[in-house]
Amino acid sequence: MTDFPLAPGSTIGVLGGGQLGRMLIEAASRLGFDVAVLEREADSPAGRVAAKLIVGAYDDEAALAELAAATGVVTYEFENVPAASVAWLAARGVEVAPGPKALAVAQDRFEEKTFLNAHGAPTVAFAPASTAEEAAQAVAAIGVPALMKTRREGYDGKGQRWVEHLADAAAAFAALGGVPVIVEAACDFVRELSVIAARGRDGETAVYPLAENHHEGGILRRSIAPARADQALSEQAERIAARVLGGLDYVGVIGIELFELADGRLLVNEFAPRVHNSGHWTQDGCEVDQFEQHIRAVAGWPLGPTQAIAQVEMLNLLGDEVDAWPRFAAEPETRIHLYGKRDAKPGRKMGHVNRVKPL
Amino acid sequence: MTDFPLAPGSTIGVLGGGQLGRMLIEAASRLGFDVAVLEREADSPAGRVAAKLIVGAYDDEAALAELAAATGVVTYEFENVPAASVAWLAARGVEVAPGPKALAVAQDRFEEKTFLNAHGAPTVAFAPASTAEEAAQAVAAIGVPALMKTRREGYDGKGQRWVEHLADAAAAFAALGGVPVIVEAACDFVRELSVIAARGRDGETAVYPLAENHHEGGILRRSIAPARADQALSEQAERIAARVLGGLDYVGVIGIELFELADGRLLVNEFAPRVHNSGHWTQDGCEVDQFEQHIRAVAGWPLGPTQAIAQVEMLNLLGDEVDAWPRFAAEPETRIHLYGKRDAKPGRKMGHVNRVKPL
Repeated sequence: MTDFPLAPGSTIGVLGGGQLGRMLIEAASRLGFDVAVLEREADSPAGRVAAKLIVGAYDDEAALAELAAATGVVTYEFENVPAASVAWLAARGVEVAPGPKALAVAQDRFEEKTFLNAHGAPTVAFAPASTAEEAAQAVAAIGVPALMKTRREGYDGKGQRWVEHLADAAAAFAALGGVPVIVEAACDFVRELSVIAARGRDGETAVYPLAENHHEGGILRRSIAPARADQALSEQAERIAARVLGGLDYVGVIGIELFELADGRLLVNEFAPRVHNSGHWTQDGCEVDQFEQHIRAVAGWPLGPTQAIAQVEMLNLLGDEVDAWPRFAAEPETRIHLYGKRDAKPGRKMGHVNRVKPL
Repeated sequence: MTDFPLAPGSTIGVLGGGQLGRMLIEAASRLGFDVAVLEREADSPAGRVAAKLIVGAYDDEAALAELAAATGVVTYEFENVPAASVAWLAARGVEVAPGPKALAVAQDRFEEKTFLNAHGAPTVAFAPASTAEEAAQAVAAIGVPALMKTRREGYDGKGQRWVEHLADAAAAFAALGGVPVIVEAACDFVRELSVIAARGRDGETAVYPLAENHHEGGILRRSIAPARADQALSEQAERIAARVLGGLDYVGVIGIELFELADGRLLVNEFAPRVHNSGHWTQDGCEVDQFEQHIRAVAGWPLGPTQAIAQVEMLNLLGDEVDAWPRFAAEPETRIHLYGKRDAKPGRKMGHVNRVKPL
């Protein structure tokens, strides 16, 4: 078994070699930890700063065995980690955080919304469907327009379709691949917000101020944080975060996406059991950012402070937008975070900037 | 030849694998750079976060060739880089920053003080000596007590002796190994200060606020920054920094140690052609810290802002003091920076903490 709090000099395992892994390593390095990354690609943003890189599939037992030999604590930077891999590691005494419950709930949109409602975190109305007939029934029950999403996989707006007419339900179901789906009611929100929160191994929680998020084509473009919010709104978000974290017996940082309704109520859209793009503002807006907070939680350290020390506008740099780095570098108020990705495909997250001003 | 500004995704070379290298890599990673480290030890703080680790001596041509193949820009984290290695790299089109002049001057305490005085940066009185007779003459000229130091090598109080009586000069010279020395007048300072400054490839300079430093046994224990300083004192420091940076045609971050006299004048004690322990406060006290600033300068990027956004007390953690990490981790105002060193030998710099409060 692993002893907590984990001492500096220990190795922490990370499944996934993307930018979230890279920024977790930057934070882990500051705290004196080494990081072992398991990643499919031989060249990756996180792999290039990892103390140890294991190249393999996330369900490759030889790769997992190598990871288990290197470390007693593993976390991940994406939610589609195979449950069997987590079970395999756990059976060998490796602590995986966030734990299997958080992963299982987060990997299935129907389980996720069912869990949220059961724990007093409201969502839009929803219904599951596994056949074309059930899909039509679900759309009829929810009403149009409705959003049909695959229960599993899908991110950044992928794996979902709007259904404008009941008659289109079966076609949408087929277009999504005929896999199990969830049908969600449309949400007439006034703003998209998110709350980044953390829970330690001792159950301590810490919640960052709300971020206001702007998406384009399903991809986050811009976050403003701390978001303009009265005390009632902030308290709602904190209550939701506490219920979700407690209900999942969570360890680590979570990103919870919210809809703000005209009447001031918050609904939960979804959560990600990991550090979250809408929390990147904390790198330059808080003393302890979401990456260090996640490492602290996973390592069994006390959580750090979460209050904002600056007002931040976070802009994602997608595709060749990253080519504007010389302009950003010349702006005194702009902090630059680039991921070292080799290929600036359209829409690909290549980096972000935090434009900082005093609170 | 290397094109500047250096584009993200490029590799920067670092000679030396210690904590300064590690923190340079943390900053370089944020900006999307990869780092190749050349270091004697197979296991080192910086080696464990480097994209590429080359194990070899700093004057090993095969190792230098491997470094030159990986990158067109090389910097270093310690001042005793062999001049021949820098020349070897430069002859192969590799830009080494800070350049050979800064290194040559910084490596010889007599050259350093001569340079400083020639550029209007005042120092204590000093005289060189290469024999026991010259050492006695130098002490006679400077007066006692005098500080005798080897001209080359030596750090953290090593390689130096106080001479209290003229009759002890020859013995001190012998005790220092009979190598060329410099004899310096004692300085009756009221405070030890330092200024961290940077110069870009285009000659742009940026100066951080002064830090007040407290040493024990020749080793930095504690810095307080921004130091209490009136405008005249800050302007003196900025003037000194500008003269030193300009005189050396410098590229990168420099750490300049200063003595404050009772009459308010500043004398230069010495400078280090690299990021500096007394600049660690910038990690949590400034938007762009000395490590990112150095990477920006070396990469030919514009320099970042240097004003303080918080008041910081930096404490070095020496030897087993690092074992107190659980206490520091529980302090909300304390930011932790640990180096991942395996062996907490007495006096060894294992990490530091920045205790932060609002300005």
